[in-house]
Amino acid sequence: MPAYAVGHKVPDSDSICSAIALSYLKTQIGEDVQPARLGELSPETLFILDKFGFEQPELKMNFADTDGIYVVDHSDRIQGPDDIDNTTVLGIIDHHKLGDITTSTPLECWIRPVGCTNTIIKMMYDFHSVEIPKNIAGAMMCAILSDTVIFKSPTCTTADIKCVEALAEIAGIEDYKALGMEMFEVKSAVAGTPVRELVMRDFKDFNMHGNKIGIGQLELINLNLVDDMKADLQADIAALKTEGDYHSVLLVLTDIMKEGSEVLVVSNNDDLTEKAYGSATVDGKVWIDGIMSRKKQVVPPLQDSLA
Amino acid sequence: MPAYAVGHKVPDSDSICSAIALSYLKTQIGEDVQPARLGELSPETLFILDKFGFEQPELKMNFADTDGIYVVDHSDRIQGPDDIDNTTVLGIIDHHKLGDITTSTPLECWIRPVGCTNTIIKMMYDFHSVEIPKNIAGAMMCAILSDTVIFKSPTCTTADIKCVEALAEIAGIEDYKALGMEMFEVKSAVAGTPVRELVMRDFKDFNMHGNKIGIGQLELINLNLVDDMKADLQADIAALKTEGDYHSVLLVLTDIMKEGSEVLVVSNNDDLTEKAYGSATVDGKVWIDGIMSRKKQVVPPLQDSLA
Repeated sequence: MPAYAVGHKVPDSDSICSAIALSYLKTQIGEDVQPARLGELSPETLFILDKFGFEQPELKMNFADTDGIYVVDHSDRIQGPDDIDNTTVLGIIDHHKLGDITTSTPLECWIRPVGCTNTIIKMMYDFHSVEIPKNIAGAMMCAILSDTVIFKSPTCTTADIKCVEALAEIAGIEDYKALGMEMFEVKSAVAGTPVRELVMRDFKDFNMHGNKIGIGQLELINLNLVDDMKADLQADIAALKTEGDYHSVLLVLTDIMKEGSEVLVVSNNDDLTEKAYGSATVDGKVWIDGIMSRKKQVVPPLQDSLA
Repeated sequence: MPAYAVGHKVPDSDSICSAIALSYLKTQIGEDVQPARLGELSPETLFILDKFGFEQPELKMNFADTDGIYVVDHSDRIQGPDDIDNTTVLGIIDHHKLGDITTSTPLECWIRPVGCTNTIIKMMYDFHSVEIPKNIAGAMMCAILSDTVIFKSPTCTTADIKCVEALAEIAGIEDYKALGMEMFEVKSAVAGTPVRELVMRDFKDFNMHGNKIGIGQLELINLNLVDDMKADLQADIAALKTEGDYHSVLLVLTDIMKEGSEVLVVSNNDDLTEKAYGSATVDGKVWIDGIMSRKKQVVPPLQDSLA
């Protein structure tokens, strides 16, 4: 059996593209590694795979009979494979806070405070002096443009920008910003999509000091796109909170042009956003200027305020 | 305030030399980082610092008023600073199994399944294209020779060997194996040392599935050196077990020339070594051929057997 590279549940473009890019690299240096996914792909990710000629990675929930897994784009147990204890974690490549995955044997971790896992995968290619194929470079580049919101996110570092420039050259793409905008237009096409699908499109669970918190995010080129469905979204996260026995569920509606977010909130704590972000929730929602990154701006203050 | 690079409690040569080497590297790239230590140094480490002209790093237990810490040579909370929750973990550089340190913000982790943290620090110098000063290269080299038992340990990888060769060249040391043997002779000079000091010289705590396990190790060029004190060592780990409320305390007496270890055992489980290593404890001790590495050969089977 091969080993697998696998990203988080509710896979985003970074999870999928880094699993593909890492698997190719590992295979080139003599390890049999295949990409896997833990769920259905978003329109944005399907756009990237289609653009660069990739099949969807295998949908795989059970890793017991494998040679182990490389965990990409997360290090929280709750976000990864449910049967992680039945396999060996060979490595972690990630750019988030350090989560609660532990191992009983030494492993390989490449974790950096950069904007995207694929920026780290590029460092791994460079370390091993392995050439990146054109189509993999294109997919990696799109994942970085997605995670950094075309460099607008506060998570974006100079390493991410340099990496995109290098990958664009390898992939032969002249105007990568135009491609990025095309990608975000695909991502912003929400009309006609079932409300629950939108809530879950980029949704992550967190265990914050014993409280189960769910945070979804939609990055849109204009928040007007969801004006008509906002009441339905609010009703749906309230339903989800009950179904999933959450302490709080947040849906972060990010306006990538205005560079801020409206956060829809249902929580056991009425003062949740007041305490975490200094802005009170009114009628189940709050606009917070400048908030674009769940990882860097939404999660840490929330985690600290729940300590 | 600066940030600090800090290794594990009961510091060994790798913890101290990697803290020194990392601090210099970080300072060169513009971060104010100082080395710290959590305890007294062993004769081996003092030999290395003296040989290459270093002062002992600052003894420091409180990191609350610092700019954060780089955790080196461990990732288990129990092994690191007691007040880790009062500071920010900026990064982890380690070569052990992944422990239970978590963070609330993104960080930098360089973790590799190699024989020594200093082998990874060398990769970091290469990544940042920073030249390693002669004396730091010498200290790093000695730490690798110590952790890999001059390449005899099963934890030793080709990366460690290549790294030692490169560092020896930078440090201008022709016969690094002779220096390694000289170092292990210093390490083997146990006569006249209080028994508790020997037990604690290289001692680590582990939380294995809720059981507190303490494992000490003495690497000696000949086990005859402790023949006269074996009964006292056995009595002392029994006393330590009660004092520290341990499930088990093991003292691994490694014969680096015969390449095996006699393990002294006190445990709540009579069949502890039988289940973990397939060799029964008789009269509180058991010889296990080929066992040289706590990290790779002692800990994982024990952890698995206690699951």
